[in-house]
Amino acid sequence: MNKEIAAKLLEKVRTQKPVIHHITNWVTIASCADIVKAFGASPVMAHAHEEAADMAGIASALVLNIGTLTPELIGAMLLAAKSANKKGIPVILDVCGAGATKYRDESCAKLLAGSRIDIIKGNASEIARIAGLNVKTKGVDSTDVKADLGAMALKLAKERNCTVVITGKEDIVCGSGRTYIVKNGHEMMANVVGTGCMAASVIGTFAAVEKDLAVAAAAGLVCYEVAAENAAMKAEGPGEFKFRLLDEVYCLTGANVMRNQKF
Amino acid sequence: MNKEIAAKLLEKVRTQKPVIHHITNWVTIASCADIVKAFGASPVMAHAHEEAADMAGIASALVLNIGTLTPELIGAMLLAAKSANKKGIPVILDVCGAGATKYRDESCAKLLAGSRIDIIKGNASEIARIAGLNVKTKGVDSTDVKADLGAMALKLAKERNCTVVITGKEDIVCGSGRTYIVKNGHEMMANVVGTGCMAASVIGTFAAVEKDLAVAAAAGLVCYEVAAENAAMKAEGPGEFKFRLLDEVYCLTGANVMRNQKF
Amino acid sequence: MNKEIAAKLLEKVRTQKPVIHHITNWVTIASCADIVKAFGASPVMAHAHEEAADMAGIASALVLNIGTLTPELIGAMLLAAKSANKKGIPVILDVCGAGATKYRDESCAKLLAGSRIDIIKGNASEIARIAGLNVKTKGVDSTDVKADLGAMALKLAKERNCTVVITGKEDIVCGSGRTYIVKNGHEMMANVVGTGCMAASVIGTFAAVEKDLAVAAAAGLVCYEVAAENAAMKAEGPGEFKFRLLDEVYCLTGANVMRNQKF
Repeated sequence: MNKEIAAKLLEKVRTQKPVIHHITNWVTIASCADIVKAFGASPVMAHAHEEAADMAGIASALVLNIGTLTPELIGAMLLAAKSANKKGIPVILDVCGAGATKYRDESCAKLLAGSRIDIIKGNASEIARIAGLNVKTKGVDSTDVKADLGAMALKLAKERNCTVVITGKEDIVCGSGRTYIVKNGHEMMANVVGTGCMAASVIGTFAAVEKDLAVAAAAGLVCYEVAAENAAMKAEGPGEFKFRLLDEVYCLTGANVMRNQKF
Repeated sequence: MNKEIAAKLLEKVRTQKPVIHHITNWVTIASCADIVKAFGASPVMAHAHEEAADMAGIASALVLNIGTLTPELIGAMLLAAKSANKKGIPVILDVCGAGATKYRDESCAKLLAGSRIDIIKGNASEIARIAGLNVKTKGVDSTDVKADLGAMALKLAKERNCTVVITGKEDIVCGSGRTYIVKNGHEMMANVVGTGCMAASVIGTFAAVEKDLAVAAAAGLVCYEVAAENAAMKAEGPGEFKFRLLDEVYCLTGANVMRNQKF
Repeated sequence: MNKEIAAKLLEKVRTQKPVIHHITNWVTIASCADIVKAFGASPVMAHAHEEAADMAGIASALVLNIGTLTPELIGAMLLAAKSANKKGIPVILDVCGAGATKYRDESCAKLLAGSRIDIIKGNASEIARIAGLNVKTKGVDSTDVKADLGAMALKLAKERNCTVVITGKEDIVCGSGRTYIVKNGHEMMANVVGTGCMAASVIGTFAAVEKDLAVAAAAGLVCYEVAAENAAMKAEGPGEFKFRLLDEVYCLTGANVMRNQKF
């Protein structure tokens, strides 16, 4: 990946201020809005069936997250995703908690069958589940997956003709026939609720300004995780880390990204 | 406006600790509760149709916000507003995202037609939409409105016989045949999710203790925005700003308000 | 209570990392997840009827909170509670706002009649209402209760054959024929939205690793409130207090607990 791309896309996000429509969960909905706003973009959350399609129609990307799914919410996601498909804006699906219950698996299948999902994002066990492996996830936290994650992501990306992102100590991004590994980030992220959901929002934000979605996803993760490294250096714990992450994203410079990026 | 009124009403809020019933959105619901509590009042959120009217009945003000509206939520708002009307407590409507979708416009119209809204609050493009101008809002963030905002607010306030608040760099408050301009606040507020929704909660909190609703709204905004100025002086970014805003509200003195108020 | 028990259970939580299933309110849902995660456990929130029972089935405790109840949510709580009962994991009910409306009272009765609730938790006026006293609560904040709280808790615990927790300046925990008084905590907690809801999540987290539920509840409260004391020493207001509380929980040592515990 071009060494300047993450910094350039960061600038593009700040200049274009894309509207990022979310239909997400009730736990991290505020954090998702916060991180998009900290990047200089404009988050909007709207899940009524009466307006889901319209709102996607004025957005530049759509982020879906099944963290606290219900049939109504999945219905809204389908309406929004179809509208996004029609408009040609990227749809990101965070398969939060896939594998935890039968209903989550079925809902993911429904979303993937009923609309075009451009980027599928999850942790190792969640993506393994979407890829058809018989893994059980422990709620919404990742469990060990005994599989070649890179090969699994590549296979899923090819099958679905989409971009696949596996977040973890190293993030794997597969799409457009390429694989990018992002080695930024900090272990403190695993101790903070919402860092995974926020990652999906960041990916959506960058996908709004860059057509190569694998590049967009990798660049977004690089920026987000460089900021997380900066935040972790100052934070005494997960509470301080969370607000400092927003501040570091807000203050992040392209120079800082280029100096610290690892991919 | 009397130079001591904001400080006096701040004291009144802290002494009376009014219960402020909210039916609001899922993104900033916690922030709305936080700011009301920081002012020393008692926030309560309740949206079940089974209790919306009863809860309004034990409250001293009702704050409605359509940020993540659904038909069920609009139904609950109508039940609560009618109960509030009957009891004679003020109803504040934050027309969050008005103009973004047809459904938001229709829902605002439904609320305004089906109950007495005492204070309509929004940013420039949202209020312009409510006033009948053909503006398109960009999600929930304000867009430029080419209109005389003061005249627009005054006209809407007269037509609806209510108080109208337009938040922005300068806040315009029209009601009781008067217009107040609040020049406090800080540009960092525009970088933080929820500052607009919190403003509506603050207006509701002050409206609970002062019958002249335009005075209450202006005084509440003054206190909130003086605290925001104090917070901005200490904050490195939007994350730190948000928690410091609560602390500055909590620690705000009448003397500090009087020294820094601009209206 | 054994002087080492709170420190020992803290260690057990961190080692076992139990999954704590919540069906809770939309105001403090993020705070509940945050505090469970800060303790090293794994929060999961899921309220769809389609998965509520399944999610409880992979959890080690279930925490219910009626803060923003609806008929759908109460239905989900019953499904999850019955599943938890069947599996033999503890069910904690935070009777948030009991007494504020008729609907809250009826819903509490429905939950208590339709499933086995192992721990009932509330503030003085909420528990008084559950115990059948004719008190009116002021929204979700506690009001003065003219009654012997210890006797009231003991009676309710016996009648229901469960553990009863009354939070306040001093927390009263009754169960297994014993009463524990926890004298830790800080008055700043009453100025922060969600400290009560988080207490229920902490109780659930400790109940997941200790069979004697009264001991678990008391030990959890001790750890939580010692951390709160530490946070209050550093915080300038409720905003800073809230994030420092997470950091102090995250950094809490058994030695610190044993040095500061008051029960």
